[in-house]
Amino acid sequence: MGFRHCRAALAACLFSVATAGFAAPPPAKGKTMSDVLAASAATDWRRLDPDNSVYLDFAAGRVIIELAPAFAPQHVANLRTLLRQHYFDGLAILRVHDNYVVQWGDPDAGDADKARSFGEAKHSLPGEFSQAIGKQPFVRLPDGDVYAPQVGWSGGFPAARDPKAGQIWLTHCYGMVGVGRDNAADSGSGAELYVVLGHSPRHLDRNVTLVGRVVQGMELLAALPRGSAALGFYDKPEQRIPLTRVRLGSELPESERSTVELLRTDTATFTALVETRRNRWDDWYLQRSGKVELCNVPLPVRQP
Amino acid sequence: MGFRHCRAALAACLFSVATAGFAAPPPAKGKTMSDVLAASAATDWRRLDPDNSVYLDFAAGRVIIELAPAFAPQHVANLRTLLRQHYFDGLAILRVHDNYVVQWGDPDAGDADKARSFGEAKHSLPGEFSQAIGKQPFVRLPDGDVYAPQVGWSGGFPAARDPKAGQIWLTHCYGMVGVGRDNAADSGSGAELYVVLGHSPRHLDRNVTLVGRVVQGMELLAALPRGSAALGFYDKPEQRIPLTRVRLGSELPESERSTVELLRTDTATFTALVETRRNRWDDWYLQRSGKVELCNVPLPVRQP
Repeated sequence: MGFRHCRAALAACLFSVATAGFAAPPPAKGKTMSDVLAASAATDWRRLDPDNSVYLDFAAGRVIIELAPAFAPQHVANLRTLLRQHYFDGLAILRVHDNYVVQWGDPDAGDADKARSFGEAKHSLPGEFSQAIGKQPFVRLPDGDVYAPQVGWSGGFPAARDPKAGQIWLTHCYGMVGVGRDNAADSGSGAELYVVLGHSPRHLDRNVTLVGRVVQGMELLAALPRGSAALGFYDKPEQRIPLTRVRLGSELPESERSTVELLRTDTATFTALVETRRNRWDDWYLQRSGKVELCNVPLPVRQP
Repeated sequence: MGFRHCRAALAACLFSVATAGFAAPPPAKGKTMSDVLAASAATDWRRLDPDNSVYLDFAAGRVIIELAPAFAPQHVANLRTLLRQHYFDGLAILRVHDNYVVQWGDPDAGDADKARSFGEAKHSLPGEFSQAIGKQPFVRLPDGDVYAPQVGWSGGFPAARDPKAGQIWLTHCYGMVGVGRDNAADSGSGAELYVVLGHSPRHLDRNVTLVGRVVQGMELLAALPRGSAALGFYDKPEQRIPLTRVRLGSELPESERSTVELLRTDTATFTALVETRRNRWDDWYLQRSGKVELCNVPLPVRQP
């Protein structure tokens, strides 16, 4: 949370964290997110697993996705098969629906003659929308939720549970990656993926298989031009944004991978971070919420 | 919710609403949003008031904002004064912070020699963060909320109330427009404005004066390149995005205004629309939420 540029450029800056010429800020009584991250231990972080990561390169730069095989084992396996065949290279981002999703796939998927071959991958899989509560880790957020009886994090991903129904599932927070499907539950394969943009569309929870989340480059996807056709599809083929190269991390030479570390969600450091989002002690804040919504808790990423 | 383009282009499409070759969809048991909007009466809509609207023109197109004088009378009055002086013409978008805000103002605001004159407008105003519950309209959303005891809509804007504290305030949903300030509560003026992008940062509620919401062109702001300096500020002056012309609607010749209509939030039609967001009967949905979050309810706009 630097602020120098902000202070240099602007008199009235939304998030400046120092004052000059105004009443002194109240003494800080709690930690800020910067405090908590600065005090984190090496063991609070985990290294992104190359076999659970997707590197998507396109003209604007690189997007890195962490896969969630614990929640979508069949879809992740199918996606790995597609990735090993370089299925996505040269396909395109076809749709950017404002305040909703960005989506990519094969523009010719509907045309049997032109569609790219799935090779050894399956064309459709049973939906992996939720699973029975079992031994999955679950760090609960006690602040409540509009959509689910319980919310929290499971293995670094935002998740929800319904103990009555005995089910656990991943939730549609900003940056989560899901599998496009047609109306039938088993009509998705992983060959068409979307990423959540805008206010988290939690009504999609348990309607779609979520396979992971963007851990780097989300700002590149979020800034793509919105499509003007129905549902945010690009009107003209030339508006589509080609995917240059999409690889499973473990298929890339080590020199071409990024070293990405993610804050573990099952640590005291993460619990302390959640508290800094619930009650902000940065000088700028005049009113603390006392509560925080699941999708407003960031999942920190660093490149050591 | 058209889907033809979608079906033509994609085998597995996230939001297609027809199936072919799959099991027949379950019979619709409730209305969809399209049904509700198609059945709306002329009286369900209100015309955007030219004196409560801001037309912001820049290279990408036009953004229209509806002002909320009922909640921020002093800030809206000051903003009208600035607009009548054409204060914003030639100033710029300075900051796009992914999953947070886009912000514009005077790049030279911190330099007394270069800063643009405020003319007759005030440099600072008391914060209008919340107000006493009185005769404001309030249509309550009974679905619950993480941040406030009550949420709903007041005069077309998303709002929250705390009956114990006797306060009502506007909420930071996607597209809401707020007043940048420094650390002091009374350090904002309206000369620097931000628009909410991404997952609604409700922790800003009651920390900032909200003055309105974007009713057209949000997709243009949302697609701007993110800034790479701290807090999403653009690193280099040449990255800033100039504002060509920013006018109060009533100052524009009628021929240059858009006819914008907004669905009234105090109508049976709007209540029916909320229900279509709580329980989606479109064929694609396999699981209905039964609840909806305040910021996931769209506030429909049309141009008759």
